[in-house]
Amino acid sequence: ARPRVGYFYVGTKTNEGLLKFLKESPVKDVGSLPIVIAEGKSVYEAIVTLFLEDVGTIYVVKDSYLSGVISRKDLLKTSIGNKDLNTIPVEMVMTRLSHIVYVNEDDSIYEAISKILTYEIDSLPIVTAHDVNKLEVVGRFTKTNISRLLMEFANGN
Amino acid sequence: ARPRVGYFYVGTKTNEGLLKFLKESPVKDVGSLPIVIAEGKSVYEAIVTLFLEDVGTIYVVKDSYLSGVISRKDLLKTSIGNKDLNTIPVEMVMTRLSHIVYVNEDDSIYEAISKILTYEIDSLPIVTAHDVNKLEVVGRFTKTNISRLLMEFANGN
Repeated sequence: ARPRVGYFYVGTKTNEGLLKFLKESPVKDVGSLPIVIAEGKSVYEAIVTLFLEDVGTIYVVKDSYLSGVISRKDLLKTSIGNKDLNTIPVEMVMTRLSHIVYVNEDDSIYEAISKILTYEIDSLPIVTAHDVNKLEVVGRFTKTNISRLLMEFANGN
Repeated sequence: ARPRVGYFYVGTKTNEGLLKFLKESPVKDVGSLPIVIAEGKSVYEAIVTLFLEDVGTIYVVKDSYLSGVISRKDLLKTSIGNKDLNTIPVEMVMTRLSHIVYVNEDDSIYEAISKILTYEIDSLPIVTAHDVNKLEVVGRFTKTNISRLLMEFANGN
């Protein structure tokens, strides 16, 4: 019989191990690349970007810093009954910085998942804070990342 | 010191335990309620339903059986440049049955997560198959369900 390697490796492969991993690993280690658009661009350009990149959320930046978040839902709401999406700038329909839920790059994966579930959102921007309201977007953390983590843990990768 | 209950409970709390749980538990046990709309309803009604129920995907039914899936992305694509969404029936823009990825109610959670990751989709309809192409929609399985599973497992619930 083949040795059942790993099965009795108590400590890192138990749920205690999973919890420790989620609480001690920074979210930046498992996030995806962020997709950004500059303030001043139109809602139409945001929609094109969303389809081209196949993401659910785009981050709006001003002078390289996060200023807003725009989701499929925001874009859908805007495109109903608005015939010229080229004339509407993204900052008119985005969620503004003061209302954005985000994580710092060194925050734990556990904290990131908790925020996603608590605020019932699809993804979080991962940021490096340079100063108050000067948040550089360095990644995004999504429910796809979470799903991959679960499968990797179950399969022992 | 408090006893560290559960920490050494090898067998159901290891990753072997997680894998066994995911492979042996039917997806119907952890899914959410499905949101459906009947064929013949308009794209506008689908958008209203999507916002009211706050879901990413709606299932289209004909004579109570699954006939299509309509996502935020489909609705966004349709609403660009179409001024009267009341006159477009959902069946014109939905993904049709032959192209829908779904799971049967007794399929495992593992299989459901695998399908979501393989096909890069946000959710799956959970169905009871009564006959060929007669699929009753009994639930939906989403990446939110997966995220909750991971946290419950990590926290030992």
